[in-house]
Amino acid sequence: MDRIARLREQLEEPLLVTNPTNVAYLVGFKSSNTVLLVDEERVRLFTDFRYIQAARAVPGVEAVQTRRAVLAELAETLSGRIAFESSHLTYDLFQTLERGGLDLVPRSAAVERLRAVKDEGELAAIRRACAITDRVYERLAEVPFVGRTERDVSWDLTRLFHEEGGEGLAFESIVGAGPTGSRPHARAGDRTIGAGELVVVDSGCTIDGYASDYTRTFATGPIDGEAAEAYAVVQAAQAAALGAIRAGLPALEADAVARRVVDESPFAGTFGHGLGHGLGLDVHELPRMSTETTDVLEPGNVVTVEPGVYLDGRFGVRIEDDVVVTADGIENLTGLRKDLVEVG
Amino acid sequence: MDRIARLREQLEEPLLVTNPTNVAYLVGFKSSNTVLLVDEERVRLFTDFRYIQAARAVPGVEAVQTRRAVLAELAETLSGRIAFESSHLTYDLFQTLERGGLDLVPRSAAVERLRAVKDEGELAAIRRACAITDRVYERLAEVPFVGRTERDVSWDLTRLFHEEGGEGLAFESIVGAGPTGSRPHARAGDRTIGAGELVVVDSGCTIDGYASDYTRTFATGPIDGEAAEAYAVVQAAQAAALGAIRAGLPALEADAVARRVVDESPFAGTFGHGLGHGLGLDVHELPRMSTETTDVLEPGNVVTVEPGVYLDGRFGVRIEDDVVVTADGIENLTGLRKDLVEVG
Repeated sequence: MDRIARLREQLEEPLLVTNPTNVAYLVGFKSSNTVLLVDEERVRLFTDFRYIQAARAVPGVEAVQTRRAVLAELAETLSGRIAFESSHLTYDLFQTLERGGLDLVPRSAAVERLRAVKDEGELAAIRRACAITDRVYERLAEVPFVGRTERDVSWDLTRLFHEEGGEGLAFESIVGAGPTGSRPHARAGDRTIGAGELVVVDSGCTIDGYASDYTRTFATGPIDGEAAEAYAVVQAAQAAALGAIRAGLPALEADAVARRVVDESPFAGTFGHGLGHGLGLDVHELPRMSTETTDVLEPGNVVTVEPGVYLDGRFGVRIEDDVVVTADGIENLTGLRKDLVEVG
Repeated sequence: MDRIARLREQLEEPLLVTNPTNVAYLVGFKSSNTVLLVDEERVRLFTDFRYIQAARAVPGVEAVQTRRAVLAELAETLSGRIAFESSHLTYDLFQTLERGGLDLVPRSAAVERLRAVKDEGELAAIRRACAITDRVYERLAEVPFVGRTERDVSWDLTRLFHEEGGEGLAFESIVGAGPTGSRPHARAGDRTIGAGELVVVDSGCTIDGYASDYTRTFATGPIDGEAAEAYAVVQAAQAAALGAIRAGLPALEADAVARRVVDESPFAGTFGHGLGHGLGLDVHELPRMSTETTDVLEPGNVVTVEPGVYLDGRFGVRIEDDVVVTADGIENLTGLRKDLVEVG
């Protein structure tokens, strides 16, 4: 069944799709200024001059040219009861529609929930992105890090993804050496990487718009006892989660399995983010695996599994694989080794 | 006067700043999950575990750790009359705050209007980004395009910006050869560039987070009469706009000056987008120069000046410079020649 048909099954009224990634998912059309209206009979794609030519080439939709302020024009021309994407539409644009006299119904994450379950075409794209990312991480580790800046290693990732056939980076790479690695979302900076440090490398590429998202923590030569111990704890936490994940498991419990390993170690309390997140057209999408989620894992979810330990101002460790959730377990798309790799 | 002080002058109640770029502008802190609350006495920065270490290092602010759902926590802990960024906050997050009993006042573009007028530090960053972009465009034209794909030329831009010292691309480069160029926002694809085509190249980099945004249209060998004529019309339209822009001019009139040149030519009606936009931490920011704008140009605005002509399915021409608006004219930051460059 196609995506529009699956969406229609959920709808009680026409849905105005304003999130451009959701528009791209539903009809394969990517633009920063396009709105889709899905009702029982029709799928209408509203966009301005810049995109209208391309919109007319989209099969199965009726392309309608509007002025650049698409929603202001729709407020004047549409009427009746219409659902909108309430986790995407801004307050101002909601007001624009409301002033037009529409009877607006908030709908949150209708398309995002469809996107959480991947079809075969989507899985094929993510598998290719992961195969490329495997090769990039293997090649990255062949050149020593010591004496180079984080930013220079980050450029190597950009170059290697291009050479291996990625469309582009899925997000700005993180290369966090020593203390930088203790900040889970620090980007790559001008710090020169020293010997005997842990270096957190978090990167990925896209294929047909679908993202990979890996992390490996490398060591620049022998590391001291506590860093080695932290690595072993994160590795064990990830192994526990990978062994537990299967369709039907509440995502909260997947998170808890990994968190328990960290919290029963000397590093209790230092795993300060969720276990992972859905991966697809967005790098962060449904389902979420964290201490706050209510999601339940389903077959066809693609999720990251990425426990970490962060010691303030000293170092961080994170190991992240991308996996497909199946009826009885996982298909791990990440082909890299898990033990600590020394890069010199 | 510092940015927080300029903002306070405009405020009648405390402002909750949720747009991460506005947070970065006001206090120099960049994160995807941070909210700033500016009142008469204090500047509070709310963020989660992942960013709290970095937030504590920000001078002049009080860093407060929250759970990952920052606004849900603020809904519980704040009270009274608070303004919010209504062109950024989603409907759902507005509801989250409202359920907390806050007396919410919509404020649109308060920080964006400050950002439209650049200070000396910002101008210095944009000047550096433009100097790098000059060199990249000059070097790009030294290697023939014919026989290569749009995507391959796009990779050259990525590599050259890195070599010349850009932090990264300001946006995904556009390389549109022949018919691709007639779609103003087509990215680079797998099309092989032929001889005698026009190739629209739209790219830029960032320095300290500030963007450059150039377009040049190259010719791969001699082009026919109509394409050459279109180029001359776009060049004349840009020259007219560059000659007219000065502080005090309504942005609508700047657009009209360029549009008149196109509309009095055989290419009337083919300049289907606005003349330009503000440039800074975002690639598209205030002021807007278009047929719909109410902005008036001010000294210190940095804007793109980018008329174009697009012939459906055949070719496009666009020439884009970045300029600073001054009391009596402009400072053009783009050092490239304007005539049609043949690249082979």
